[in-house]
Amino acid sequence: MRDLDELLTQLTLEEKAGLCSGQDFWHTRAIERLGIPAIMMADGPHGLRKQPDGPGADHVGLLDSTPATCFPTAAGLASSWDTELLTRVGQALGREAQAEALSVVLGPGANIKRSPLCGRNFEYFSEDPLLSSRLASAHIQGVQSQGVGSSLKHFAANNQEHRRMSVDARIDERPLREIYLASFEEAVREGKPWTVMCAYNRLNGPLCSEHHRLLTDILRDEWGFEGVVVSDWAAVNDRIDGLKAGLELEMPSSGDTRTRLIVDAVKEGHLEEAVLDRAVRRLLTLIFKGVDQHRPNATADLQAHHQLAREAGRQSMVLLKNEQILPLGSQQKVAVIGEFAQRPRFQGGGSSHVNPTRVDTPLDAMTSRAEAPLTYAQGFEIDSDQTNDRLTEEAVAAAQSAEVAVLFVGLPERYESEGYDRTHLNLPANQLALIDAITQAQPATVIVLANGSPIIMPWVDRVPAILEGYLGGQAAGAAISDLLFGDASPAGRLAETFPHRLEDTPCYLSFPGEGDVVNYSEGIFVGYRHYDTVGTAPLFPFGHGLSYTTFEYSDLTLSGDAIRAEQGLSVTLRVTNTGRRAGHEVIQLYVSDRTCTVPVAEKALKGFHKVYLAPGESISVTLDLTHRDLAWYDVDHQCFRAPSGTFEVHVGASSRDIRAVASFTVEGDAPAWPALHRNTLFGDLEALPTAQRILRDTLAPMAEASPLLAGMLGDTSDGESDDMMVAMMRYLPLRALPSFTAGAFSEDDITTLLERLRQAAVA
Amino acid sequence: MRDLDELLTQLTLEEKAGLCSGQDFWHTRAIERLGIPAIMMADGPHGLRKQPDGPGADHVGLLDSTPATCFPTAAGLASSWDTELLTRVGQALGREAQAEALSVVLGPGANIKRSPLCGRNFEYFSEDPLLSSRLASAHIQGVQSQGVGSSLKHFAANNQEHRRMSVDARIDERPLREIYLASFEEAVREGKPWTVMCAYNRLNGPLCSEHHRLLTDILRDEWGFEGVVVSDWAAVNDRIDGLKAGLELEMPSSGDTRTRLIVDAVKEGHLEEAVLDRAVRRLLTLIFKGVDQHRPNATADLQAHHQLAREAGRQSMVLLKNEQILPLGSQQKVAVIGEFAQRPRFQGGGSSHVNPTRVDTPLDAMTSRAEAPLTYAQGFEIDSDQTNDRLTEEAVAAAQSAEVAVLFVGLPERYESEGYDRTHLNLPANQLALIDAITQAQPATVIVLANGSPIIMPWVDRVPAILEGYLGGQAAGAAISDLLFGDASPAGRLAETFPHRLEDTPCYLSFPGEGDVVNYSEGIFVGYRHYDTVGTAPLFPFGHGLSYTTFEYSDLTLSGDAIRAEQGLSVTLRVTNTGRRAGHEVIQLYVSDRTCTVPVAEKALKGFHKVYLAPGESISVTLDLTHRDLAWYDVDHQCFRAPSGTFEVHVGASSRDIRAVASFTVEGDAPAWPALHRNTLFGDLEALPTAQRILRDTLAPMAEASPLLAGMLGDTSDGESDDMMVAMMRYLPLRALPSFTAGAFSEDDITTLLERLRQAAVA
Repeated sequence: MRDLDELLTQLTLEEKAGLCSGQDFWHTRAIERLGIPAIMMADGPHGLRKQPDGPGADHVGLLDSTPATCFPTAAGLASSWDTELLTRVGQALGREAQAEALSVVLGPGANIKRSPLCGRNFEYFSEDPLLSSRLASAHIQGVQSQGVGSSLKHFAANNQEHRRMSVDARIDERPLREIYLASFEEAVREGKPWTVMCAYNRLNGPLCSEHHRLLTDILRDEWGFEGVVVSDWAAVNDRIDGLKAGLELEMPSSGDTRTRLIVDAVKEGHLEEAVLDRAVRRLLTLIFKGVDQHRPNATADLQAHHQLAREAGRQSMVLLKNEQILPLGSQQKVAVIGEFAQRPRFQGGGSSHVNPTRVDTPLDAMTSRAEAPLTYAQGFEIDSDQTNDRLTEEAVAAAQSAEVAVLFVGLPERYESEGYDRTHLNLPANQLALIDAITQAQPATVIVLANGSPIIMPWVDRVPAILEGYLGGQAAGAAISDLLFGDASPAGRLAETFPHRLEDTPCYLSFPGEGDVVNYSEGIFVGYRHYDTVGTAPLFPFGHGLSYTTFEYSDLTLSGDAIRAEQGLSVTLRVTNTGRRAGHEVIQLYVSDRTCTVPVAEKALKGFHKVYLAPGESISVTLDLTHRDLAWYDVDHQCFRAPSGTFEVHVGASSRDIRAVASFTVEGDAPAWPALHRNTLFGDLEALPTAQRILRDTLAPMAEASPLLAGMLGDTSDGESDDMMVAMMRYLPLRALPSFTAGAFSEDDITTLLERLRQAAVA
Repeated sequence: MRDLDELLTQLTLEEKAGLCSGQDFWHTRAIERLGIPAIMMADGPHGLRKQPDGPGADHVGLLDSTPATCFPTAAGLASSWDTELLTRVGQALGREAQAEALSVVLGPGANIKRSPLCGRNFEYFSEDPLLSSRLASAHIQGVQSQGVGSSLKHFAANNQEHRRMSVDARIDERPLREIYLASFEEAVREGKPWTVMCAYNRLNGPLCSEHHRLLTDILRDEWGFEGVVVSDWAAVNDRIDGLKAGLELEMPSSGDTRTRLIVDAVKEGHLEEAVLDRAVRRLLTLIFKGVDQHRPNATADLQAHHQLAREAGRQSMVLLKNEQILPLGSQQKVAVIGEFAQRPRFQGGGSSHVNPTRVDTPLDAMTSRAEAPLTYAQGFEIDSDQTNDRLTEEAVAAAQSAEVAVLFVGLPERYESEGYDRTHLNLPANQLALIDAITQAQPATVIVLANGSPIIMPWVDRVPAILEGYLGGQAAGAAISDLLFGDASPAGRLAETFPHRLEDTPCYLSFPGEGDVVNYSEGIFVGYRHYDTVGTAPLFPFGHGLSYTTFEYSDLTLSGDAIRAEQGLSVTLRVTNTGRRAGHEVIQLYVSDRTCTVPVAEKALKGFHKVYLAPGESISVTLDLTHRDLAWYDVDHQCFRAPSGTFEVHVGASSRDIRAVASFTVEGDAPAWPALHRNTLFGDLEALPTAQRILRDTLAPMAEASPLLAGMLGDTSDGESDDMMVAMMRYLPLRALPSFTAGAFSEDDITTLLERLRQAAVA
């Protein structure tokens, strides 16, 4: 065991300051005289991007990186709803990292998809925090099982690319806790990432890189994080404030310019050396962990990883619509149309861009698989928005002469990327025109989509089948072929809502903000929570995805119909494959809080489980609900609070395909006293029997002299104005009593009353 | 001329402190030894509510007040869109106030209708600030022309009754300025009310009664208010903070309990006596103004005022739908159904409740007017939600045996009142059931509504005609008869949107807030601004209202098609009565900002004009647009700023019945330099040629050594990542340069660059 205390005493102030930023773009700083090595990081939530070093290296994307397996991006992986798959993908990434001598893989990203416009959504999992956090946790556990660290990112509320380095995400405490932080919470608590990467943006004022509440109070003190916080690349502003807030490692290197700032701050007394020492101790712990767990001769089976990428692709893709046209028959005469079939878009742009070990194109995979000859027509040019008449004519001819057309369309890379957001949700005009032309020529048209985030589909009613391929990784072509020909039954379910119109999206009026302020004005009503609560019909709802087989839900039972919140609840049901093919089903459990305690979403995902069933096979599944699953975040008392009253469990195959409902009652947490001050309301006090008694005792003598007060206390026989009087009383602050008693209840009486109430509250 | 300076020196500290609150519920405090009289105030935006004094008086509504003319409430008056009418109503109120020796009439209320649920909406004008403020101004000018002061209320952002005395209205600066304050601004600037009443609620933190920025910085310093700020009744919390903030008069009296606080604060040095003196000087000015303008033998012609109430009723009611069924023929066999026909609801509950001089019921008025016998059936009980089968049967029989049924339904008083908000928008269940029964029995059914705020109408497609009567004042019955029988053509236009569903309303998810916080999360998108911008179809749109005649719009011309913003623009058009009856038309002018400078509403009302035209008559109308009409509120620079670019003028008969559109370009205000600091973005600087030159000069030498920087500056020949690089550059803060140049651009270089930029900005 290394003696870090001893090592700390040997380090000079300058060396300690130096350790707090990178040596270059990807390495920590080595201190050879003390045997402190450098460890290397690389981008890679769905595939490594290890770049060459040296001058001329650009580090972002202009130059190629070492070949690595490219798995589906997070948007696709999330659609698998398969934690075990996420862990296996993580393990593969970990193995490739070991083979490349990497110590930290930067990812996964657990940011919530607030708007489908966000340019980086393809790198994030979901609009739902439970799904997002649970998948991130599984990913992290996979990577770290191989002795390589993860870097959970971008912490927190980095939900847009627009002005990402300066914008202030203004989020109320409830949505922050229930949605945006919740999306990281389980990933930290259960996944235990070696590092967490702070986000570029501001959060309710401070930059995340200087956010003590975020990086220390919540991340470490509440959630128990024990690793290192690393800056997103160039997220550092005030290095000293960052260190104080809990940001240990600045990346990339800023040369010596900020090291000197740290040294000066310690010397001038602006920074306690103990704060620096604490950061260095955490950094040394990380560095030696990386070094100690490095496996010098590690290799990765890239062939096996390609097969895993293919499996992940199959699990990730979502069959959105199918009017008895899929799967294709091996003997069917198929026209494959669209440049994406030959030049697939299988990953997104920016820091996560992988140099794949190989690429399966849909055209090649389908050609190998089909038993009848396929025709191919390019149809349009990915790199243009202009219709090419010759390509259109060719494609129409191909579609007409086939039995079925499979049309590959999607978003070109210029439409969605790290760095900027989309401004609309439509496909390029030339692709829309081609969809028109092909569907007129061939009603039996299957659309296969390549995109990292939802698009609108004005053509949805004109096609009988749509397969959402997302950005499906290097084996996407093979996976698509597997699904189209029915070698596997589609197993993906949407981890996000597809809207009919951009205007229907929850934050349409507030995304991406104005100047450097973005108000998260939809509050907790993100994703399906919004659509369900306001009753807006989505194009395809959260959780939706078809299969080639069918499932029946039955025997929903609860472990109790009247529980105490801290007991939790077990929900058991049976699912049966009632179709003629084997297939996966994602059982989804939503909870509706009907207590009317605070505004809540119509329902919220609180559990899920993916099963694989042979035809006729049946399985009993139990999902557990905890106190937290019944609670909302009580801002005043800074805790999750379960209310008392009625709840419902909704179990189904999507958020809009609920198959069974059961209700139960909860005895929640004891109601808390309101804060006691001059502006405390009568109504809030009267909810507590003790307080009510004190109030009535105090006021009764005065009511005789004040008809108004008598009216407000309900002591009037004239019914006409009772409703208003009752409301006046309910909303009356204590300090208003002198005004409604002509001073008979005085300022001093307020003080006395408050004192009595305070004593009762403590008792 | 009284010497107030001299008077101030004669007043003791205790007397001065005493003047800062009422003598009782309705009077200011008299100081007889110095000849300072008391003046009296009374509720009364649409009719006086002068209450008897003495013990036992409750001051809110249990006891009757002196009879006074009850005009339509503000919701109705606003639907007239008739400033001249508002002034005449104000004059009548002023005359009645003089006759009752009142010096201040409490009203009008210029709060924005944020949600149709607000219990007090019937007392407010509109969801649009221009309409609201202009009507309030006309009302004030009318009252004050009679030597009686107005009290413009409730300043500001009192947009709900729920927790109205404690809730914090959290409103961003742009909606605050463009919507919520704008609704008061013209009323203050042009109306020059003697007093302004501060609201109960908090606004972005402080209570309005202690809000220095609101009561002094904005109201007095920006808008030039010279009168007295009076508290809403019992709105005072900390009396000293209130005085400092600019609240001169606490109402009602709180006895001596708060007078003592003021005296002590001055003695103990917590309150400068000069602040108290300033308040007292303003109070004395108001008191003597009231006294000096009092006309001792004034009388009011209550008969004439009743006729004015009838005219106001006709102008206020809105014909929402009419499928060739109205007007009724004098000889038609009409069944009058619904208890409201006999017991009309013509005003709202709470402090504005008037004891009317007389009441015209619809049934009496229609009976007098019709030339054929009418039948009447009660149909339902107003005071119950339960269906009464006997009444239903009677009503169905009456409807069946008539040629047309006129069904009076509406909201009972318990459904909407000062003091609490509605929780849904529907009519009571018994009335809904009756509508079902009657429309099945008699397709020719006219619905007449009595309500102070929109309701939903699930039955809208089952009735051929709907007349929105609002709360039409004591002559509502006669006015309704006038309109139904065609003695006047309906002249009202909605001053608010009627939604299809509560869920469609702009603040559905944030009204009325959680605990004591309500976020105005819809921002500037209030009312039709929201419906138009998100493309939600309303049940009946803002500005809508039918007539018995038709109007044609033509000859739209602009005074220029390329203007400078400070020049303004004149919009001229011709309107012709193309029907066969005389009638009123409200010409509405909306402006659309297409410059894409900041998020703006699809369109916004910027002018209106009501005309009365005989059949065939034609009139040319000119409406003027000012700089302000083209501007948005620039929060960073605290001013209204007109952007450069394309605008459109939409002229029409409602917000969704646009008859002519014209576009023009504006040369707006010069773009401002962004604030210069470490986090200023490249993109914001590059928008200014001078700044761009400085940036490029500074960075060009470094780009050679940094391919990343070169890429971001656009100096790369590799097109693949250009979009991302350009975006990175646009959103890059200066402080990030050390990270992307490995420290070659140092912290010191940032300082130097900022200094150069600051010099250029000043130059």
